[in-house]
Amino acid sequence: MINILLSGCNGNMGQVITRLSEDFSGLKIAAGSDINNKIKNSYPVFTSLNECDIKVDVIIDFSNPKAFNGLVEYAQERRIPLVMCTTGLSAEQISMLKNDVSKRIPVFFSANMSIGINLLIDLVKKAAKILEGQFDIEIIEKHHNLKIDAPSGTALAIADAINDTLNEKCEYTYDRHSKRKKRGKQEIGIHAVRGGTIVGDHSVIFAGKDEIIEINHTATSKEIFAVGALKASLFLANKKPGLYSMDDLIAESN
Amino acid sequence: MINILLSGCNGNMGQVITRLSEDFSGLKIAAGSDINNKIKNSYPVFTSLNECDIKVDVIIDFSNPKAFNGLVEYAQERRIPLVMCTTGLSAEQISMLKNDVSKRIPVFFSANMSIGINLLIDLVKKAAKILEGQFDIEIIEKHHNLKIDAPSGTALAIADAINDTLNEKCEYTYDRHSKRKKRGKQEIGIHAVRGGTIVGDHSVIFAGKDEIIEINHTATSKEIFAVGALKASLFLANKKPGLYSMDDLIAESN
Amino acid sequence: MINILLSGCNGNMGQVITRLSEDFSGLKIAAGSDINNKIKNSYPVFTSLNECDIKVDVIIDFSNPKAFNGLVEYAQERRIPLVMCTTGLSAEQISMLKNDVSKRIPVFFSANMSIGINLLIDLVKKAAKILEGQFDIEIIEKHHNLKIDAPSGTALAIADAINDTLNEKCEYTYDRHSKRKKRGKQEIGIHAVRGGTIVGDHSVIFAGKDEIIEINHTATSKEIFAVGALKASLFLANKKPGLYSMDDLIAESN
Amino acid sequence: MINILLSGCNGNMGQVITRLSEDFSGLKIAAGSDINNKIKNSYPVFTSLNECDIKVDVIIDFSNPKAFNGLVEYAQERRIPLVMCTTGLSAEQISMLKNDVSKRIPVFFSANMSIGINLLIDLVKKAAKILEGQFDIEIIEKHHNLKIDAPSGTALAIADAINDTLNEKCEYTYDRHSKRKKRGKQEIGIHAVRGGTIVGDHSVIFAGKDEIIEINHTATSKEIFAVGALKASLFLANKKPGLYSMDDLIAESN
Repeated sequence: MINILLSGCNGNMGQVITRLSEDFSGLKIAAGSDINNKIKNSYPVFTSLNECDIKVDVIIDFSNPKAFNGLVEYAQERRIPLVMCTTGLSAEQISMLKNDVSKRIPVFFSANMSIGINLLIDLVKKAAKILEGQFDIEIIEKHHNLKIDAPSGTALAIADAINDTLNEKCEYTYDRHSKRKKRGKQEIGIHAVRGGTIVGDHSVIFAGKDEIIEINHTATSKEIFAVGALKASLFLANKKPGLYSMDDLIAESN
Repeated sequence: MINILLSGCNGNMGQVITRLSEDFSGLKIAAGSDINNKIKNSYPVFTSLNECDIKVDVIIDFSNPKAFNGLVEYAQERRIPLVMCTTGLSAEQISMLKNDVSKRIPVFFSANMSIGINLLIDLVKKAAKILEGQFDIEIIEKHHNLKIDAPSGTALAIADAINDTLNEKCEYTYDRHSKRKKRGKQEIGIHAVRGGTIVGDHSVIFAGKDEIIEINHTATSKEIFAVGALKASLFLANKKPGLYSMDDLIAESN
Repeated sequence: MINILLSGCNGNMGQVITRLSEDFSGLKIAAGSDINNKIKNSYPVFTSLNECDIKVDVIIDFSNPKAFNGLVEYAQERRIPLVMCTTGLSAEQISMLKNDVSKRIPVFFSANMSIGINLLIDLVKKAAKILEGQFDIEIIEKHHNLKIDAPSGTALAIADAINDTLNEKCEYTYDRHSKRKKRGKQEIGIHAVRGGTIVGDHSVIFAGKDEIIEINHTATSKEIFAVGALKASLFLANKKPGLYSMDDLIAESN
Repeated sequence: MINILLSGCNGNMGQVITRLSEDFSGLKIAAGSDINNKIKNSYPVFTSLNECDIKVDVIIDFSNPKAFNGLVEYAQERRIPLVMCTTGLSAEQISMLKNDVSKRIPVFFSANMSIGINLLIDLVKKAAKILEGQFDIEIIEKHHNLKIDAPSGTALAIADAINDTLNEKCEYTYDRHSKRKKRGKQEIGIHAVRGGTIVGDHSVIFAGKDEIIEINHTATSKEIFAVGALKASLFLANKKPGLYSMDDLIAESN
């Protein structure tokens, strides 16, 4: 039985993970931490991580970039594997995770915790490699009307993954209405649709001469990210220090 | 038999109309005009409209905004009904067509000559009226990588038609990446995808609480605009002076 | 304050309505009935309708076709308006509702309780009328892998609504793989996709010469049907006897 | 300069290839054969292959399964590489091509001559491997209303490729309306939409718990198959005897 410490347990995603963890065999949430302690959970919740003295096998973090330093310190001191799910980390924090923290403890880090999105990125990279130079690439993402950032981090991760694959790098175009000119060859158009309660759609379009290939991912609930985080916990619990991603998890399960 | 004078007969669309006119019963192209006279047609072509002395029943214009004044004068003097298909007319030219020219001769003018697009606009207006205040509206248009303007004139015509229907008017948003904030209630997002040889897709999304309605139009060849122009000629040939649009044609044929 | 008797209160949809009713002003669930009485609700639940002596303003029925007779008798005797949401009613039961019950009490009955689906049907009818004879019509519906019937009742309701509109009636085609022949002119193809946890997608395709119009509805949670039922209750509470549908509700709110 | 003998040169696809070959550098059509000799081409046309004594480097066949035997004999005798594009070959003919003819001459054979479709098949196989057991797979194909067979050969080729990849094989389901039961785990639903002038759409849907991955290919003109055939000619001209497919062509060009 893998015991989990859930950092950010009383946020939206923390609560989804709490609910779903009951259906997962082989793991349980043993403790939580959150500055908001108004929600009752079936496990003890600490308002500060440092108060938590319960022994755990993995930490899942779905809290806040501001909590990063304290969290990383706590995990490193106790040698606890860390599944990092918080979005909006700074470039510096990401670099620290990859180059520093992962030298000492196992770190799981992916731009998106959904298995489907990670597969989509793999497929898109393969397509981009084969179609380069002949097809134009555009990305459309759709999210609910409360989302503040645009485009989504996932859309940018897709675009970056494409660019890593291409021989000739592309620039990202967000707005064509402000200029009168033909599409450039080295462009990836990125479009952020916002409306209603859309959980998250990502669509990558390869448009060539008289044919179009489109690869789409649709999420209909946030549970898929929670499932990804819980699977990552099971995967990471007994690994050696190092940096792991959804690709490794997918590879291991096949 | 309706005799047509085709202005701009040697441009792309002029040639498509020329080819399709042979399949239409009840009409034929009796003369053409084009500054380019290098293409042989089955009808006489004049490099200047004023040289054309052949008697016709309708003029179809698919030429250039620069030819507007000469064309309108020619049509008015001879009392010839005018199907105006040239895109990119100035606001002033459009106003002249609507308020002036149509007082003297029958004028057919629509933002888009496809029957499908005009139906889409009708459907979208109906949906906007019923869903106002509860659903967010976004428009995605897709065109080939040589198109210079963005968004398409048709996308703007759709947005304008929606706005005419709404009690609370919306602003158009072309780029969300440059600001960090939630979608406003009075917004229509308009996205211009460019790639490959896409002839023209228009998609209107109504995103509400847990449900989405989407109305799409896909054109797979430019022939649909030529068909629209030829049907408009048959419709307009014996009308009284006035301003007519695809809506009138659709209404008459039902 | 409208008091509701919720028949089938402990089924899936009954529980969704119970939860959502708390967010609606102007109504509350005053009583429930269900043969399963193992779920605790904030209102009294009766295992048989006849035991319920609480005075209510509307009945919402989301139970079972087998309960139809008892329910209708109960509502008629007490002159209580009835929002009928149970699916799978027999043709005889539907006819009784329309021709009989609605003479004595107000009855609300729609093939689908979502406002979006009812709008889709309106739009599709308009499109079918205008495009008849020139465009082929196909319907694709998608639902989760536990759904037993195919095609969905809503897909059939859409097809029937189209057929009511057409001058030349169409037959429904469910399987093309068993015959080698061209599509007939008087056909509507209906396709039932099943997979994962898809809540409900309906797509109507009008395919013509070089252009396609598509009207889609996507539901991402069952709450939209609950919202429709609660809105119908508010709408129906003080109406005269008669048959009402989502179209009337939509018309009144505009 | 690669000289091509185009078998079936006066059919639809033969004429598209004829037109496109003029834009291709490095190849030209040196001769054609067709039982219909009423169309004038820029190259000599023979009504029977055996009359053709012009020396060529490759044969492209877009004729008819009935011409198979004569064609194969002709190519083998003269050691001419053969790009086989005729659809509807019998299982026996396909087996002969693969096991027999390709021992003696280079043979290029793919279920579909479009590079995009072949990439789609690769992507779908990868997705199927990773998602097996967790996602349901459905295929929707759309073609024009004159197509006689259903589902398309390409849809079947996609389904077969998926099945080759899966550990647990699936049956194909074409019609769900005739039975009332839940979707089986070992099913691939295949849906054939027919309407208007749709050139060819193929969509593969992977539907899982709260997420969907969709991979689509849209062809907007038959030219993509002609381009594929011409590229295959350049690829095949100097190969050793053997069986080659679009996968080999794609691999070589990357």
